[in-house]
Formats: sequence, C-alpha cells, structure tokens
Amino acid sequence: MAGKPSIPSGTRDFGPEEVAKRQYIIDTIKQVYHRYGFQPLETPVMENLSTLLGKYGDEGDKLVYRILNSGDFLKKATDTDLQERNIAQLAGVVSEKGLRYDLTVPFARYVVMHQHELSFPFRRYQIQPVWRADRPQKGRYREFYQCDADVIGSNSLLLDAELILMIRDVFEQLRMNVTLRINNRKILDGLAHYADCREQFNELVTTLDKADKIGMEGVQKELTTIGLNEEQINKITDYLGFRGDNKQKLHYLENILQNDIGRQGLEELWELKDRVAEYWSNHVEVEIDLSLARGLSYYTGTIYEAVSRDVQMGSILGGGRYDNLTGIFGLPNMSGVGISFGLDRIYDILNELNLYPATILRSSDVLFIPFDLTCEKAALHYADEFRHNGLRVEVYPDVDTKLGKKFKYADGKGIHFAIMIGEEEFKGGYLTLKNLQTGEQMKTSQKEAIDRIKSS
Amino acid sequence: MAGKPSIPSGTRDFGPEEVAKRQYIIDTIKQVYHRYGFQPLETPVMENLSTLLGKYGDEGDKLVYRILNSGDFLKKATDTDLQERNIAQLAGVVSEKGLRYDLTVPFARYVVMHQHELSFPFRRYQIQPVWRADRPQKGRYREFYQCDADVIGSNSLLLDAELILMIRDVFEQLRMNVTLRINNRKILDGLAHYADCREQFNELVTTLDKADKIGMEGVQKELTTIGLNEEQINKITDYLGFRGDNKQKLHYLENILQNDIGRQGLEELWELKDRVAEYWSNHVEVEIDLSLARGLSYYTGTIYEAVSRDVQMGSILGGGRYDNLTGIFGLPNMSGVGISFGLDRIYDILNELNLYPATILRSSDVLFIPFDLTCEKAALHYADEFRHNGLRVEVYPDVDTKLGKKFKYADGKGIHFAIMIGEEEFKGGYLTLKNLQTGEQMKTSQKEAIDRIKSS
Repeated sequence: MAGKPSIPSGTRDFGPEEVAKRQYIIDTIKQVYHRYGFQPLETPVMENLSTLLGKYGDEGDKLVYRILNSGDFLKKATDTDLQERNIAQLAGVVSEKGLRYDLTVPFARYVVMHQHELSFPFRRYQIQPVWRADRPQKGRYREFYQCDADVIGSNSLLLDAELILMIRDVFEQLRMNVTLRINNRKILDGLAHYADCREQFNELVTTLDKADKIGMEGVQKELTTIGLNEEQINKITDYLGFRGDNKQKLHYLENILQNDIGRQGLEELWELKDRVAEYWSNHVEVEIDLSLARGLSYYTGTIYEAVSRDVQMGSILGGGRYDNLTGIFGLPNMSGVGISFGLDRIYDILNELNLYPATILRSSDVLFIPFDLTCEKAALHYADEFRHNGLRVEVYPDVDTKLGKKFKYADGKGIHFAIMIGEEEFKGGYLTLKNLQTGEQMKTSQKEAIDRIKSS
Repeated sequence: MAGKPSIPSGTRDFGPEEVAKRQYIIDTIKQVYHRYGFQPLETPVMENLSTLLGKYGDEGDKLVYRILNSGDFLKKATDTDLQERNIAQLAGVVSEKGLRYDLTVPFARYVVMHQHELSFPFRRYQIQPVWRADRPQKGRYREFYQCDADVIGSNSLLLDAELILMIRDVFEQLRMNVTLRINNRKILDGLAHYADCREQFNELVTTLDKADKIGMEGVQKELTTIGLNEEQINKITDYLGFRGDNKQKLHYLENILQNDIGRQGLEELWELKDRVAEYWSNHVEVEIDLSLARGLSYYTGTIYEAVSRDVQMGSILGGGRYDNLTGIFGLPNMSGVGISFGLDRIYDILNELNLYPATILRSSDVLFIPFDLTCEKAALHYADEFRHNGLRVEVYPDVDTKLGKKFKYADGKGIHFAIMIGEEEFKGGYLTLKNLQTGEQMKTSQKEAIDRIKSS
C-alpha cells in the first residue's frame, strides 16, 4: 500500500493535453461519420463470455480478459478440477463475463438482438476502448480505442466506395499522408483456384498475411511446409512479385484469374476503383495490393488497410466486406462492410509529426487575480459575467499567494490574460487587464476586457 | 452458442437516439467545466487491485470487479487453499487487476504520480464509466458513468462556491428543477461534541445518512443500539427535527454549537451561503440540510448533494471538500473539493420528463435515391459536394429496391428530404428534391437544393 502507485502495464493515463489531442482525432472521425449518415452505438465494456469466445480463433480466446465471478467464485468448481489445477476447465467456471475484445462482435450481437427495430441498411459507428491481454510493445496497448463504422443489410458496392471516401475525408482533415491498400478476398479465392490449392486456403491466407515480414523466401518455405509443389509455389510467388501500377495489376489479374470467383473479385475491384477514381487527394494514395489478406477474418469481399507514408508503424486502419457476420448469432445472410480506425496509432503518429492545430490546446482564456477577500467576491461576480459571455475563466483562489506564483500558474496553463482586482479597482469600478504574452497592462471596463480577450 | 445473445445484467446497449441524448448531457456538463477552467483527465479502466482495495471500506472491496490473471491463474495458489476453497485468500492470488470503481481514487493516484508536473491548484474533470458488482435496480446499474470535477491544492472557500455555480449552470442548461442540499462535515463533528458522543462519530454519521429512509423512530432506535443515553438522543433528534429556512437553521446552529470545530463549520457554511446568495436561479434551490452526511467518505468540510424536484430518484449529484485524499498514496495535506454528476440518473430523469431539445435527435439531412447504376455514380458525386457543404447525406445503396421502401427508410430515420436522380434528371442536369414532410416536390439545381435543405 505504501509503495509507489502505478498503473497496469499496457494501459495509460491521459492528462489534459493528451485528452485534448485524442478528442481532436475522435471529433474529426465522428464528424465525417455523421456526414455520411452514420449513427452512434455504444455497447457495454463487459460482455458475456458466451458472446466473446469462439469468435476470434484460439489465439484470440486466450487474449480475452475474463472477469472473476462475484462472491464464491469456486461454487461450480469440482474438487477434481481444483486438485488437478485444470486451468482450462476452471477458467470457464470461475468467470462468466469478459472485457470487449473488439467492436465488431458486439455490433453483430446488437444487430441480432434489435433486428426488428432497426432500419436496414443500418449505418452505425462506434468509438470505444477494447482490451487484449497481449504483450505490450510500440503501437500495441492492452487498453486501446477502435473507431468503427459499418453498414449492414446491403451488398451494394456503392457502400464499399463510400467507406473509401470516408477514409479519404478523415486523413485529409487530419493532414496525414497515407497509402490505402485495397484488395478483394474473392481474388485470393481465385488465386487458390489458379494455383490449385483451395484445400490449403486458410494456410495460404495466413502466409500472404505475413509476406511483408517474412519476405519471398519465407513465403516459399511456408508454402512448401503446407505441401505445395514447385508449380503451385511459382504461381503464387509470381502473383506476389508482380509489380506495376493499379491498372497493370488489374490487367495481370484478368490474365491469370480464369475462374468464376476470381473473375467476380476482379470485377468488384475494378468497379470500385472506377467509382472512387475521381475523388483522390494528395494525402491519400490508393494502391491495389495483391498481397493484402487481412488475416483469418470474416471478410468475403473488398478489404482495406491503411499505413502512414511518414512514420513506420503497422496499419492504422483496416476493414472490409463480410457476408455472414451476424450468422454466428443466428441471423444469416446479412451482408455488410466496415472500417476501423486505430485511434492510438494515429495519435502516436500525429504526436511524432506534431500535426495538431494550436487552438485545441487552448486552456482558460483569463485568470482573475483578486488581492483580498472583498475583491475575491467581486472577482466571482465578474467571472460569472465573463463565463456567460462564453469565456473560459479561472479565479485564483488563494489571495495570500505571491503574485509571481500566480503569473507562473497562468503561464504553466497557457493562459494569455490576467485581470487584477485590488482595492483601487474595486473602488474605481474598473479592471486591470494584463496581456501575459506582451506584458501590456491597461485599465478597462468589463465590456472592453471581454471584447479584447475575445478578439485576441 | 446457438442460444439467443444477451448482455450482462446491470449493463446496457445505447442505440443512436440514446447515445445522442447521453452525449447532450455530457456535452452540457463538459462545456460548463471548461468555462470554469477545468481540464480533462482520462485514466485506464483497469487499475491495479493495490490501488483500488482498502479505499471504499469492506463493503466496497466486495463490489470491485476483479480481472482473472492471464495464463496459469492458479500459479501462486497453494494446494491447501485450493483444497479448502479459501476464497478470500485465492481471490488475491488469481487476480491483480480490477475495474475502476469510481473516479476519485484514480484521480488521487494520478495526482500523486504526476505531482511534479502539475500546476496547483489543479482543476481536472473526468467523465468515464465505473463498475460495481451491486444488485441492479431502478437507477442503479453495474456499469455507469460518473462526471467528476475536482480542484486540489487549495483550501479556499472560493472554490466551494465556484462548484456550486457550476452545479447551477449545469442544471439550468438542462432545464432540470433540483434542490441542492449543502452541509459541512465540521458541523456534524460539532454535533458529536454537543451531544457528547465523539467516540461514536462514525456510527452517528451512518445513522444520519439513512435518516431519510428509517425516519426519526429508526434513528432513535439506532442511537440507542450504539449506546447513547436519552439526553444525547434528544439533542440529536432535536437537531434533526429542526425546521426553518436557511437563515433560521444557521441561527439555530449558532445556538447549539459552542465548540471550536462546530463554530468553524458554521462559519464556513455561512460564508459559503453568503458568497453564492446573489446567483440563484429558478431551477436550482439551495437548502441547508442538517441531516446531510454523505456516508463514511473522505469529506472533511462542505458537502453537497442534489435531488430532482420532479422525479423521485436518489441523489443525482454528490461531492464535498476533503483534506487528505492523496494521503492514501503518500502525499498528505492536499486539500481539495469536488463534485460528481450521476449521468445515468440524470438521463433517466430527462427521459421521464422528455426534456431533450429536438435538434439533438436529427439524423441525416437528405437521402439520395438513384434509379440505376449510372445515376448512382452521379449521386455519389453530388453527395460528395453536399457533404463538403456541411450536410449529412446518405445515398440509398440498392437501386432495385422499391421506392416506397426507400421513403419508409427515410421516415424511420427521421430524414426530411429526398433527392431523386433518374435518367431524366441525369440527362437534364438537374435534381428532383422532395420534402418528405409536406410531400412537395420540385426540380432544382445543386446549389438551390443545398440552400433549401440548409434553411429548412
């Protein structure tokens, strides 16, 4: 108890400046979501484990934080399990709830629970923290925010295109230079056809997903391990090694994908590129990335991923189209498409590049400094008027503190004006306004002081 | 798995309308906090149990949600403890982290950890959810929001007064009729002196705290149980039974409190009343409440509590002055004062009284309805222009859906305008704008449509 207080590893406190910066990012994303007709949803931090488990693969299940049941948490544990320290069995018995692992599964649960009240296609956004019992490292936290937007209840490519425009708007407003990589899961399906390895599709996707990290040799090694022959491997490495602009990539795919599913993916990708082609900006570059796979996820069509062009740091946005997200909860055949901005990495990048507008870091507009208790009462009265005029006002509370310390306090908080009220001011019915940046000092009326501060 | 999905009891999903309403309350509180120079702090949902436990009393400790350690959570459990199902011992061994129980303890921890970087008096606000493993009932949830503001590092009564003005501003803006009860812990101390029962001070406070519920007879019974004699009990019941306006109460206290601590409390209360007297509003009524005790908390001076005058529902705000909040983490003698709005009860009350401004429930401004895929492309283009003009726009994605269903969708989301684009409009270069509330329909240019929607 007497030890130094601390917080759990992988979590963070956010002080005033940090909250202001994060709020700026969240507000930017929110505003774009609103402009595209998305509406907010918030789900509980605690979910039943029956909702969470089995949705993220075995590895994912291990990373779910579990909440110990209240009271006698061993009530349902058998003597044998306790004696044998049967962790796997006991984990399911001592806890029934867990912390939200992402925003997608709670979204699917919500849609299924409220399917009869919602208007489809349902556009929702959700900006909330999630938790993973992962090993913390640069850009990876145990408690972090996701900023999701999904439309469910339509398979129209229009929506895939609109999400790309939303991504453009967000990064443009944040003035971040990013590359948006797009691909289509059906093309990967077509590749498996083409290389005649449909049975190893999951392993193929896993391998493509880490091609960035393990390089072409690593890919060849993995593909050998899963039992592909030289011809199959050559086809896949040719595909991965293809270099060219977006148009050349599409033509290359046209050549190799002679199967239905692959053709369909190609058509969707082509159509999508066509729809968004006229909207490009300097900040966001779109690149068709044939290696993009987005792991073993529920995606079935378009997939997205964005990375910064200025700072080296994993993906800062992911997403894609899915055909059966709500199927896990008993509502099949609901097609949808979604994206998720990684707030914490975007925050880290904006910090590194110092891309925040100066205005968001503004603290109070003015500090009132009364010289005695009578003046303090007057200051409270003036402050009330200033606040009703929309200004942010502090009254320094301890009249006996030295004036220098009060100015230092204003400086520490970035406050640009001080108003001093002593006996003279009180009797004379005026205020002494000091500009703390220039040192300029003047007698003013209340109205003049408000105007001067507002127009500064 | 195949069962119907659900959420843990005592937690809630918030759909679009609910989030908009809650956000309105939060924004109102935040804006007032900013105007008084308070700055935001956010702390992690997960805290170390060493931070949380021992701060809320034995009952509180039982209500803290604990997080099961990852991996082999029985690693540090002894065979004996397992065999004997020693819950108390095992709870400390299988979990090291818990969910935030309030915002005050994390605030104290933060101040101690960052004491050398902060400018004192430090004004912070914090609006985040907290968790308690309590039995859910009306107005009581297991996951709920607190909206705290504290100033630490000054014992000036000016700050006690400013918090009262903040409370007034918030309830005035929310148009809620409330009674703000105030008292001072030093007066209760003085009462214990007066009734010669300083040794039973904790029990006295606990009894006063529930006087509302148990009535005067209940109070007498409890006081007998803790060993007070008739004279002592009479003094306390006289005190509790005193009726009068604020001024009469102050005079009554002046009469009975002939001890130092009681006089000091009385002086503070008088001074506070004096400072805020000129600022009253119709919405907020201030009442000196001699029975107000605020439980067995860390308060040492002014205490506040607010209740609705229109809806029966426990307290919706609490707070007070404390002299030693950070002492528990090794930083003694930091006086501070704070308040906490209960978002969830305020939300329930505003719902019951339907006090939300209509504008906050606005969804999209306009729904674009393209009649074929070529028109869809044009619609995407128009939508982009409308959005850059600040409008909230949706494009209906499935061209084959019947028009009636599309209007119904707009209706369900409260969208007031539709813009239809068919072959005619596309070739003619105009838009067909329909006001969905009046049924009025007209050909317009893009600019005219934007102006009409904006000015509606």
